[in-house]
Amino acid sequence: MSLKSYCLAEIASFIGCEVDNRWQDRRITGLAPLETATAEQLSFISHSKYKKYLATTQAAAVITPAETASCVADNTAVLIYADPYLAYAKLSHLFAYRTACASGIHPSAVIDKSAKIAESAYIAAGVVVEEGVVIGDNVVVGPGCIIGAHSSIDNDSYLHARVTLYHHIAVGKRAVLHSGVVLGADGFGFAPEKGQWIKIEQLGRVLIGDDVEIGANTTVDRGALGDTIIHNGVKLDNQIQIGHNVKIGQGTAIAGCTAVAGSTTIGRHCRIAGLVGIAGHLEITDGVVILGMSGVSKSILEPGIYASGLPIESRESWARNVIQFKHLNELAKRVTQLEKKDELHE
Amino acid sequence: MSLKSYCLAEIASFIGCEVDNRWQDRRITGLAPLETATAEQLSFISHSKYKKYLATTQAAAVITPAETASCVADNTAVLIYADPYLAYAKLSHLFAYRTACASGIHPSAVIDKSAKIAESAYIAAGVVVEEGVVIGDNVVVGPGCIIGAHSSIDNDSYLHARVTLYHHIAVGKRAVLHSGVVLGADGFGFAPEKGQWIKIEQLGRVLIGDDVEIGANTTVDRGALGDTIIHNGVKLDNQIQIGHNVKIGQGTAIAGCTAVAGSTTIGRHCRIAGLVGIAGHLEITDGVVILGMSGVSKSILEPGIYASGLPIESRESWARNVIQFKHLNELAKRVTQLEKKDELHE
Amino acid sequence: MSLKSYCLAEIASFIGCEVDNRWQDRRITGLAPLETATAEQLSFISHSKYKKYLATTQAAAVITPAETASCVADNTAVLIYADPYLAYAKLSHLFAYRTACASGIHPSAVIDKSAKIAESAYIAAGVVVEEGVVIGDNVVVGPGCIIGAHSSIDNDSYLHARVTLYHHIAVGKRAVLHSGVVLGADGFGFAPEKGQWIKIEQLGRVLIGDDVEIGANTTVDRGALGDTIIHNGVKLDNQIQIGHNVKIGQGTAIAGCTAVAGSTTIGRHCRIAGLVGIAGHLEITDGVVILGMSGVSKSILEPGIYASGLPIESRESWARNVIQFKHLNELAKRVTQLEKKDELHE
Repeated sequence: MSLKSYCLAEIASFIGCEVDNRWQDRRITGLAPLETATAEQLSFISHSKYKKYLATTQAAAVITPAETASCVADNTAVLIYADPYLAYAKLSHLFAYRTACASGIHPSAVIDKSAKIAESAYIAAGVVVEEGVVIGDNVVVGPGCIIGAHSSIDNDSYLHARVTLYHHIAVGKRAVLHSGVVLGADGFGFAPEKGQWIKIEQLGRVLIGDDVEIGANTTVDRGALGDTIIHNGVKLDNQIQIGHNVKIGQGTAIAGCTAVAGSTTIGRHCRIAGLVGIAGHLEITDGVVILGMSGVSKSILEPGIYASGLPIESRESWARNVIQFKHLNELAKRVTQLEKKDELHE
Repeated sequence: MSLKSYCLAEIASFIGCEVDNRWQDRRITGLAPLETATAEQLSFISHSKYKKYLATTQAAAVITPAETASCVADNTAVLIYADPYLAYAKLSHLFAYRTACASGIHPSAVIDKSAKIAESAYIAAGVVVEEGVVIGDNVVVGPGCIIGAHSSIDNDSYLHARVTLYHHIAVGKRAVLHSGVVLGADGFGFAPEKGQWIKIEQLGRVLIGDDVEIGANTTVDRGALGDTIIHNGVKLDNQIQIGHNVKIGQGTAIAGCTAVAGSTTIGRHCRIAGLVGIAGHLEITDGVVILGMSGVSKSILEPGIYASGLPIESRESWARNVIQFKHLNELAKRVTQLEKKDELHE
Repeated sequence: MSLKSYCLAEIASFIGCEVDNRWQDRRITGLAPLETATAEQLSFISHSKYKKYLATTQAAAVITPAETASCVADNTAVLIYADPYLAYAKLSHLFAYRTACASGIHPSAVIDKSAKIAESAYIAAGVVVEEGVVIGDNVVVGPGCIIGAHSSIDNDSYLHARVTLYHHIAVGKRAVLHSGVVLGADGFGFAPEKGQWIKIEQLGRVLIGDDVEIGANTTVDRGALGDTIIHNGVKLDNQIQIGHNVKIGQGTAIAGCTAVAGSTTIGRHCRIAGLVGIAGHLEITDGVVILGMSGVSKSILEPGIYASGLPIESRESWARNVIQFKHLNELAKRVTQLEKKDELHE
């Protein structure tokens, strides 16, 4: 897919390591795992359990820590780097495909005359930009995006096709927003009155920090009063739901299909897996790790690793155990009863 | 964000309560919680546990029931209202932002000549309206919406940007549909034939009642035979999946990421939390409340509050308990065995 | 909704069965269940438990296996077919509504001049087609779809409104992609460096086989290195999340809101229910069935039916049992202790 190529000298220089003279001109056209890499590809050892592949890989070159460098076959070039996975992450940027987009505004885009769009920004086909919008330097707004009134997108952010921002949404620098993202829809707020739901208009905003990435079809609701805030460096996967007035601290990463209900605050540098449900009005402190499919119904005030949920079994075994779960409290009482009797006997 | 302001006399009149003469002209520019309200904002006491803030709030005025009116500081104006949260819900409408939209059809919209669009409706940029569509009075169809053939949207409904209606979908009066909503995609129906899936064309419709709100990226599938029906006053949060031929009764509210499988009927005035899974072909009666992340695999024929799922613990504790769960049936048998022996001893 | 009608002779011929002479000209305008069918509709018996309706249905005709043909009332026409549900699936295609679309390209579509679009294809209003795209014979690309650079859509595929393909995505023949589908967004990959996340550019593609159907708002991420692959005949429901480098084998069907994390391989002819979570880097063999809301954290190497999760109970009962679950390991130890003592007594 990539037509780009680099010589090993360029690659070593890009990540800041050295490469032996005899290999400096070797051409690299892409990255690949050790087992499948071809003679024009660069590979890396991401875990010591793959050490065995270092001797047999067909890769043009491998990135390895010093400890395992001697395992590499003679004909394979070696780049020494303490964290090869990090090196791979950095080098992936050299090979990324970017749709050609000059700066400017596609003639099919509909731009309100009050919008301020940097000259270096690119506004693709079919985009709608409403009144009072501000779009910074080098921003790319992909095809079919809708940027609501008085929203702003700061420098170097990249909106893939079909992102929707409601009104008064602020996106920071270097954000990446994927297709289907919706920022600023109404939070779910209604007051009951005589069997009817009276809508609570959602008067707050969504504020997105710098270096935030938000995955496809993820939704972040605007605040009811006050704002929903996603701090710098937060990474959200696909199909996540973030309720109104949620705060997510710097550097926290959340995997796909997780739901965070309204007014919950999540700390910094948390890692939350997929399909987790977090109830509303909770506080989760910094550095919390939550495993997949957990249900969080109380605040978490101590850093650590948390889990809930049950792993699969065969249907037969599961059905038998599930029936007992409905009697678990009773079972515990029966055991207590036995223990009491046992004490009496002694 | 809001530039609107109202004097307290107007506000009191809007919700139908009185305000002392000396405060009638006080200007209010917005709503805020007691702790953060400024001298131009109106606040309210949503729960008696916040009573302590009434004496210290900086708000221009507070809405309070008669019982706690005496707790308010002298300089703060007082509006007596039995349900301040409901007053807040109603007053939020005064401060809501509305993107300026005159009536009419944006020149970039693509409208089939057979469509009937009320003169007072607004059709935004990039909208596509297919054959036979009917759009009522004061309807707003936001940018990038697609209205499929022979669909109809009744008076005063508001479609935010990028809502998709397939063909033959009927939306009632005063509906609010958020971005990314898809109404009328095919239900998931296939018949097996010799190891292949034969598609069952979905021949029904989606019928949406009056006063329904549907959150961002929620999907409601069309019926297979017969229709999928969302009755009046139903409120659906974001990222909900409603399967084909589901019926949801009047006034029921469902929170984010919940999935309802095909042909299930949910009663009136139910409240269903987030990430709940409801299997197909079930009946859930009126007035049922289901807590978050519950799994519903049987019909619920009695009103009440239902739950399933496990709350989080530390990973270590969880891992130990989960292992025992796989032996729970066996454990129950062991306890029974002990009880039998115990009886023999006596 | 349908204006189509067929005589019974045509219908019998379409599915390959016979119909008695006296009924050949009877006109059928649609399909319906036995209980609600009218005198112009065709019905079928999908399960023997509905046998009682055969005598009383108002349907013009019923499809039934030979065994139950004698139960049908005299005036109702009979079509004998061993698998009536399959017959219904096949006949549903006769009555499906199709939005009128000639071949050609709507003038509002924005098509890169390097794209190759078959003459028989239809490109609807507001579509964007980027550089190097190839679109095959009889393909329909619905309103507002975005087809990213160098992607391809093979013959007879149907993209409903507002589908997004990123760059270098390949879709096979006869695919059906529903509104809001996003194929090829970045997988969720970051390497940590000094408290920051370094993005791993996702360099692979998404490859979709023939006869695949993908439901509304489902997302399939592109591979990191190598590709994400959905094989022939796979059926994905709405709001599913498929992570990077996942492989799904031929004929597998997955229900709504299920999430599959990165690098997991799912075999052929599996059936996976809704709201299931499948962790990353697992292998699930052919022919596995997983019930709704299950959590899969280990590979499944034997075909069979698997489940996890707990069914709902009343909140009171649930709360008592959940508390005991947190002490389950301890409870098991107490039982072991009692057993030991009991042995000593004997």
